[in-house]
Amino acid sequence: MTRIDLNADLGEGFGAWQLGDDEAMLEIVTSANLACGFHAGDPAGLLRVCRSAAQRGVRIGAQVGYRDLAGFGRRFIDVAPEDLLADVVYQIGALQALAHGAGSAVRYVKPHGALYNSILTHREQAAAVAEAVHLADPSLPVLGMPGSAFFEEADRLGLRTVAEAFADRAYTPEGHLVSRREPGAVLDDPAAIAHRVTTLVTSGELTAVDGTTVKLNVESICVHGDSPGAVQIAAAVRDGLQAAGLQLEAFC
Amino acid sequence: MTRIDLNADLGEGFGAWQLGDDEAMLEIVTSANLACGFHAGDPAGLLRVCRSAAQRGVRIGAQVGYRDLAGFGRRFIDVAPEDLLADVVYQIGALQALAHGAGSAVRYVKPHGALYNSILTHREQAAAVAEAVHLADPSLPVLGMPGSAFFEEADRLGLRTVAEAFADRAYTPEGHLVSRREPGAVLDDPAAIAHRVTTLVTSGELTAVDGTTVKLNVESICVHGDSPGAVQIAAAVRDGLQAAGLQLEAFC
Amino acid sequence: MTRIDLNADLGEGFGAWQLGDDEAMLEIVTSANLACGFHAGDPAGLLRVCRSAAQRGVRIGAQVGYRDLAGFGRRFIDVAPEDLLADVVYQIGALQALAHGAGSAVRYVKPHGALYNSILTHREQAAAVAEAVHLADPSLPVLGMPGSAFFEEADRLGLRTVAEAFADRAYTPEGHLVSRREPGAVLDDPAAIAHRVTTLVTSGELTAVDGTTVKLNVESICVHGDSPGAVQIAAAVRDGLQAAGLQLEAFC
Amino acid sequence: MTRIDLNADLGEGFGAWQLGDDEAMLEIVTSANLACGFHAGDPAGLLRVCRSAAQRGVRIGAQVGYRDLAGFGRRFIDVAPEDLLADVVYQIGALQALAHGAGSAVRYVKPHGALYNSILTHREQAAAVAEAVHLADPSLPVLGMPGSAFFEEADRLGLRTVAEAFADRAYTPEGHLVSRREPGAVLDDPAAIAHRVTTLVTSGELTAVDGTTVKLNVESICVHGDSPGAVQIAAAVRDGLQAAGLQLEAFC
Repeated sequence: MTRIDLNADLGEGFGAWQLGDDEAMLEIVTSANLACGFHAGDPAGLLRVCRSAAQRGVRIGAQVGYRDLAGFGRRFIDVAPEDLLADVVYQIGALQALAHGAGSAVRYVKPHGALYNSILTHREQAAAVAEAVHLADPSLPVLGMPGSAFFEEADRLGLRTVAEAFADRAYTPEGHLVSRREPGAVLDDPAAIAHRVTTLVTSGELTAVDGTTVKLNVESICVHGDSPGAVQIAAAVRDGLQAAGLQLEAFC
Repeated sequence: MTRIDLNADLGEGFGAWQLGDDEAMLEIVTSANLACGFHAGDPAGLLRVCRSAAQRGVRIGAQVGYRDLAGFGRRFIDVAPEDLLADVVYQIGALQALAHGAGSAVRYVKPHGALYNSILTHREQAAAVAEAVHLADPSLPVLGMPGSAFFEEADRLGLRTVAEAFADRAYTPEGHLVSRREPGAVLDDPAAIAHRVTTLVTSGELTAVDGTTVKLNVESICVHGDSPGAVQIAAAVRDGLQAAGLQLEAFC
Repeated sequence: MTRIDLNADLGEGFGAWQLGDDEAMLEIVTSANLACGFHAGDPAGLLRVCRSAAQRGVRIGAQVGYRDLAGFGRRFIDVAPEDLLADVVYQIGALQALAHGAGSAVRYVKPHGALYNSILTHREQAAAVAEAVHLADPSLPVLGMPGSAFFEEADRLGLRTVAEAFADRAYTPEGHLVSRREPGAVLDDPAAIAHRVTTLVTSGELTAVDGTTVKLNVESICVHGDSPGAVQIAAAVRDGLQAAGLQLEAFC
Repeated sequence: MTRIDLNADLGEGFGAWQLGDDEAMLEIVTSANLACGFHAGDPAGLLRVCRSAAQRGVRIGAQVGYRDLAGFGRRFIDVAPEDLLADVVYQIGALQALAHGAGSAVRYVKPHGALYNSILTHREQAAAVAEAVHLADPSLPVLGMPGSAFFEEADRLGLRTVAEAFADRAYTPEGHLVSRREPGAVLDDPAAIAHRVTTLVTSGELTAVDGTTVKLNVESICVHGDSPGAVQIAAAVRDGLQAAGLQLEAFC
């Protein structure tokens, strides 16, 4: 039976501020990408979500980002590679201790927001993030976009790379994400998204924005945790995959 | 031969801002209390000082503080125990990863500034810090003031407590520090400080501010890293101890 | 016809994080206490809420707080008076420019959260906040608790003091707030709250937690903007006051 | 007699951290570009330097930057124009209140670090900064590089633009700064710098890095406040200008 991982960005509140419904999402996903305090996530909130994830057997990943609470890590910062490397090591370590304190552990690393996007192509930052993961723990897989500079750098260092697809995003014929600025970039119909994801996982193929077919080989599906209807979409994706006889299981 | 540890607060810059001469101090001390990013210490600067400490065989301790860059951790914050616990776990973990990345490890924990002072008596915060250390790694000793609420809570959890005395501070007959607001609270003559410390380490006795004798049994001497003349005082203390035939060695 | 002001804490989001429904509350209140960036409030969000307030003729007040985003300004910080003074001047000025940019102005100052509570009695911090307001603009009234150290210090400097009562909080026979840790400290029934407020405004009397009557002479009623049911409670208070023939009008 | 302004970046400490010798520089310059808290500058420190500047009659400018304490505002951030606009208004307002509290006023605006560099060419950010100044106070001049996108946008809004040259930087034949990564980009000999500046101010000409002559028409000379030898270089520039019979005077 084919296995597939379902991941979502969680732990994205900060102090008095909440974002998304972590508890509901933890009932659905198999891997939780937890913010590490630089773009979101206060320690006490992260410790709580680590405990919830641990109780449910959901894998914990470190979602590292730029140091930018005001921008939620969604703005590119031209940080020097040596600074970025240390920032990423710091974030991984902080979450490792919290996860450990919750009786669990950090099992993988996934960059967040603008950092995720920048290291698709930004060679120096991609190398810095890969080296940071390697320095923190070379057995940690990285979760991201296949074909990215980040994956090339991670490969070079011997890190395991885990490819993901986005459940609710349109793709170009080349297998890239359609920019959010384009119409139709983000899908919002739960049934259509669930069908699309199930097709992708069972066939390795996705219909691109122009109607052509894209081949995508992924080990994980990313569902969003903070958009309107997030929980409903995530549940539809999970149900669709299970109805197709697929087993939801963390990739690590 | 009697052994004694010499510790100092280092890694207290932040980005473009420097504080103290870390490299010079690392030539003198045996244990370096490194800031963890909440009151001082940016990741890249901390990684550099971790590497320097590792190269010289200086032990690395996590100097955890309140989240207060603007106040350098010197202002009491009435943070809830559950938040403080998570804040401390977060800081320890962050430095653990950086120290690990430098080929070393965090070997102990020492609270900083206002947190150090508050948990001399603030029972709930003392318990939260002790529990945080225990959660992060129960084998980590804590460095601090003998007789403090913090040490009682650490004892209760089975943590090793390592008592320190301050080289350049006057003591009351009860063995407490004379408040910095009092005249004569801070000593500044290197030779006098060195003599005082050597006497303390060899005899277990210190002359209090009123001329009486205080008994203090300590495993470590704290020298300051950021005051004017800090390096000169620290060197005088080291030389005085060595001239008295004492061996400078980390307590862990 | 008796006039009464209705105030609420708004602008309390930060970047991606929202708190409360500012637009709905601005339809109800006559004075908006806007966060100034130290405990909440990012500049772009504040500029938006300043524009909304200006369009509706709602008065803008600067809600100054401790520098503590992680704690939402709800934790006492033992900040030195000279630092607090400058922090408050800074916050007032920042909001003045944003309000000016929105075609409006800062019309009063109200301390937030732990600062509000601490300067009920903390003389040095109370004096620092009062002096900061005076330094920024001596014509700015301050909004707060009658009988507080803050009001005494504000009086001493010739600032206008505007007394408020809390719509949804129980009072002791002495006219103080019942601590939130006590049962019954926070009221949540919209109709009961509206009745209580209307009685207070028309009679100057309030039933204390022990059933006795407290005299309270206030110019403004504070309704909360971020609690569950906040908008419903605020609307009930407004409707109750208007039904009793009172005119809702800003105090400045 | 020809007049020339001398400006420097000051107020660049943060809490316990100092940078440069503000007091010494305030004895030399006629205009002080003060940090506004986003890349450097805590309120209490800024209030002190505002008071020192006011006592000496040194003009105060708001040096606005990206929100990036960890990077000292030296890293480009891809902040959305509407967010940047509000960030700049916020910073100007905060410093306005502090300057006012010191008996002075903000007299001009100068972008800092990476923001200064980015808006040489980044049209959207340049427009956002210009609009922010215009929103805060359309009578405020802006200080910067002639020929920049920022100056074009400022011109468009009717802001006065004040051109500056850098005392210690090499220029290309086109009148741009030689990148700091190139050898010879930064000059460090006080006498040579003073001679170069005096020639520029009296003749409007500067020798470029390739030996050709560049025409530069500037109203202000920027001397650095935080580099090694900063005070010595600034004093040499001042002495050289005065020896050539030029009058040092603020441009506003």
